Amino acid sequence: MSNTAGQVIRCRAAVAWEAGKALVIEEVDVAPPQAMEVRLKILYTSVCRSDISFWEAKVQIPVFPRIFGHEAAGIVESVGDGVTDLKPGDHVIPVFTGECKECIHCKSKESNMCDLLRINTSRGVMISDGQSRFSINGKPIYHFAGTSTYSEYTVVHVGCVAKINPSAPLDKVCILGCSIASGLGAALNVAKPARGSSVAVFGLGAVGLAAAEGARISGASRIIGVDVNPRKFDQAKNFGVSEFVNPKDHDKPVQEVIAKMTGGGVDRSIECTGDVDAMISAFECVHDGWGVAVLVGMPHKDAVFKTHPMKLLHQRTLKGTFFGNYKPRSDLPAIVEKYMNKELELEKFITHEVPFTEINKAYEFMLNGDSLRCIIHMDG
Amino acid sequence: MSNTAGQVIRCRAAVAWEAGKALVIEEVDVAPPQAMEVRLKILYTSVCRSDISFWEAKVQIPVFPRIFGHEAAGIVESVGDGVTDLKPGDHVIPVFTGECKECIHCKSKESNMCDLLRINTSRGVMISDGQSRFSINGKPIYHFAGTSTYSEYTVVHVGCVAKINPSAPLDKVCILGCSIASGLGAALNVAKPARGSSVAVFGLGAVGLAAAEGARISGASRIIGVDVNPRKFDQAKNFGVSEFVNPKDHDKPVQEVIAKMTGGGVDRSIECTGDVDAMISAFECVHDGWGVAVLVGMPHKDAVFKTHPMKLLHQRTLKGTFFGNYKPRSDLPAIVEKYMNKELELEKFITHEVPFTEINKAYEFMLNGDSLRCIIHMDG
Ligand SMILES: NC(=O)c1ccc[n+]([C@@H]2O[C@H](COP(=O)([O-])OP(=O)(O)OC[C@H]3O[C@@H](n4cnc5c(N)ncnc54)[C@H](O)[C@@H]3O)[C@@H](O)[C@H]2O)c1
Ligand SMILES: NC(=O)c1ccc[n+]([C@@H]2O[C@H](COP(=O)([O-])OP(=O)(O)OC[C@H]3O[C@@H](n4cnc5c(N)ncnc54)[C@H](O)[C@@H]3O)[C@@H](O)[C@H]2O)c1
Ligand SMILES: [Zn+2]
Ligand SMILES: [Zn+2]
Ligand SMILES: [Zn+2]
Ligand SMILES: [Zn+2]
Repeated sequence: MSNTAGQVIRCRAAVAWEAGKALVIEEVDVAPPQAMEVRLKILYTSVCRSDISFWEAKVQIPVFPRIFGHEAAGIVESVGDGVTDLKPGDHVIPVFTGECKECIHCKSKESNMCDLLRINTSRGVMISDGQSRFSINGKPIYHFAGTSTYSEYTVVHVGCVAKINPSAPLDKVCILGCSIASGLGAALNVAKPARGSSVAVFGLGAVGLAAAEGARISGASRIIGVDVNPRKFDQAKNFGVSEFVNPKDHDKPVQEVIAKMTGGGVDRSIECTGDVDAMISAFECVHDGWGVAVLVGMPHKDAVFKTHPMKLLHQRTLKGTFFGNYKPRSDLPAIVEKYMNKELELEKFITHEVPFTEINKAYEFMLNGDSLRCIIHMDG
Repeated sequence: MSNTAGQVIRCRAAVAWEAGKALVIEEVDVAPPQAMEVRLKILYTSVCRSDISFWEAKVQIPVFPRIFGHEAAGIVESVGDGVTDLKPGDHVIPVFTGECKECIHCKSKESNMCDLLRINTSRGVMISDGQSRFSINGKPIYHFAGTSTYSEYTVVHVGCVAKINPSAPLDKVCILGCSIASGLGAALNVAKPARGSSVAVFGLGAVGLAAAEGARISGASRIIGVDVNPRKFDQAKNFGVSEFVNPKDHDKPVQEVIAKMTGGGVDRSIECTGDVDAMISAFECVHDGWGVAVLVGMPHKDAVFKTHPMKLLHQRTLKGTFFGNYKPRSDLPAIVEKYMNKELELEKFITHEVPFTEINKAYEFMLNGDSLRCIIHMDG
């Protein structure tokens, strides 16, 4: 047991006081974990588009003041009552969607949408008691996505924590906590492109490029990258993406451009933008007869997906996924091993690194479309 | 060779002169089959909802005067040049969607959307020369769905004709030409419900009840029938449908009613109405995590399928199918055998029979929601 167990820990956290306003590093009080919770010391974290979307709160429900962050790695500091799977010192990755191992979804082979712990981006409190574990002068600061990793210490439900190989470098495997697993799994577990097939990836951020990696690993022979930011194209060449389409360069809808390039459409498409028009294009650009489109991007809360039902009758399939259909506690340790065995490269996703004090720079890199992933060193 | 081969045949056909107006039995001239075509003597045909929709032409492109009919059985009268698979006297079922056996779709294991011969409801002529084979006083009468079976003789592309066991009773197996294969295949080949699973069927016409049969054969333990016509419910009990929902009986959307009945949604749903709101409900009523919805109904030409993309991200799958994903020439003979071996009952789909002269009664039975299938005896 660490000597902080059972005590409130005062530490630094990046607090979002208002939508769209720069994060402020504050001293926060982090309460001890309650039953079935664990308190983690976060060592590395990064910025995912979802941290930006919910911070901007333009199209999502605003919950403030809040501590964002959901892609991270750290070490268990202490555990609450009933926690038997984890102990202080364990190396872990927290995940925005959990696995209780008891519910109908956790028991199903197909689903990772745990009834108890599935992603909930509007909840800012812990499930057990409806309270936040973060406070400043006794006033609550809200959680985000069950993880809130922009804090030196955070409290997470045990079902949202994957225990990993302690020799894995946490400054690399932290990005498996969201983007890389989500994109990779969207390809390997959901789109499942056949060897020799064609795949279109919409959005060449870290999620999209992880999907491209998954397509490459599956043996896809043609990976077409689609992005409205042409600066993404050079980077994407390192991920097996060999052809590029910028929708802005064409008068006709991008689905028609892709249909023309491929003699009728791609075998698979994976949408990783969050833009509903890109979702529609990603669906309509798959080949009739067998094409499968997979949605990964987080849609606006009022977004409406629209298409002509005949596109479906022509034997196209439309699906969506969270966290690449991986079950976080069961499957993440094995993905870490893939990295350890050099079957999966993570370094190429990491384009920037900053100390915690400069976390707003990490936000800017993503807002400007400059970064894939920027690693934030919590000790800096 | 029959003695009519190579000659124009004058025979009776039910001509739709105008949208929505009663069919008129006329003497028509049926030209001999050209290369890769066959001329069939139709013995039995029936009325499918699609014959009604395109005849009403309220929401479909109008093509008149036209000979409808696409669910039928008959005997080859003569064959055009290059036809080697069929010969006069063969017992056959014509199909609205064909199989050229050469194109990328016909060569794919997954698709039946033949590039050359897939369903085309707006074309009223033969593919080879853009001409109709039907005329009255030299003026063309247009084809429908490549079949036009409301005629004692019709000309069809060889790729749209399945050769079947000559001992099969044509007055029964004729309904395999559209509805029964389409519904059955939507369940067996596309929805693929697991043993013990729950299935909702929207629309309890012949197509929907064939889908219910497919679900029953697959071992589904709970089949929920949804229809706005409560008179369909009694009939549906003979098809393994054990629970019923009439959307008109509820204030809330039927997808919510079904979610409540099933603790979150059905494992599979199959939409067989053609109504786009029913399509949306059928999609939204499947369970998150693993639910699959299959669209079968023919949508209005301007219909828009709308849903929130989050319903997809929650791991629902949406698909559609024509002819139950069966390849007509390759697969239909085996379905006929299923009937011959008593693995598939057809009699219970046949609620009415009329002589050809009373074909308008068959239309009325369907328009009034009274019939599943009405067999039209061409010799009557
Ligand atoms: N389903 C999940 O489990 C899951 C997990 C992680 C992230 N996400 C979501 O995935 C998406 C991508 O995340 P990211 O971190 O890679 O973001 P990112 O911002 O780094 O990358 C998104 C890319 O999409 C491009 N883009 C935006 N609109 C486009 C359009 N209309 N057409 C083509 N390209 C367009 C942008 O230029 C950018 O390069 C976000 O919506 C994020 O919230 C979902
Ligand atoms: N995809 C294919 O290959 C294929 C093949 C055959 C038929 N179809 C289509 O399948 C559909 C069914 O054909 P059918 O011959 O069984 O028709 P049908 O008219 O006999 O049956 C349709 C049933 O749906 C019900 N219905 C209509 N609107 C509804 C709604 N909003 N909610 C619930 N129930 C509703 C009707 O009351 C009726 O009982 C039609 O659209 C037809 O064009 C498609
Ligand atoms: Zn993320
Ligand atoms: Zn669970
Ligand atoms: Zn039909
Ligand atoms: Zn073909």
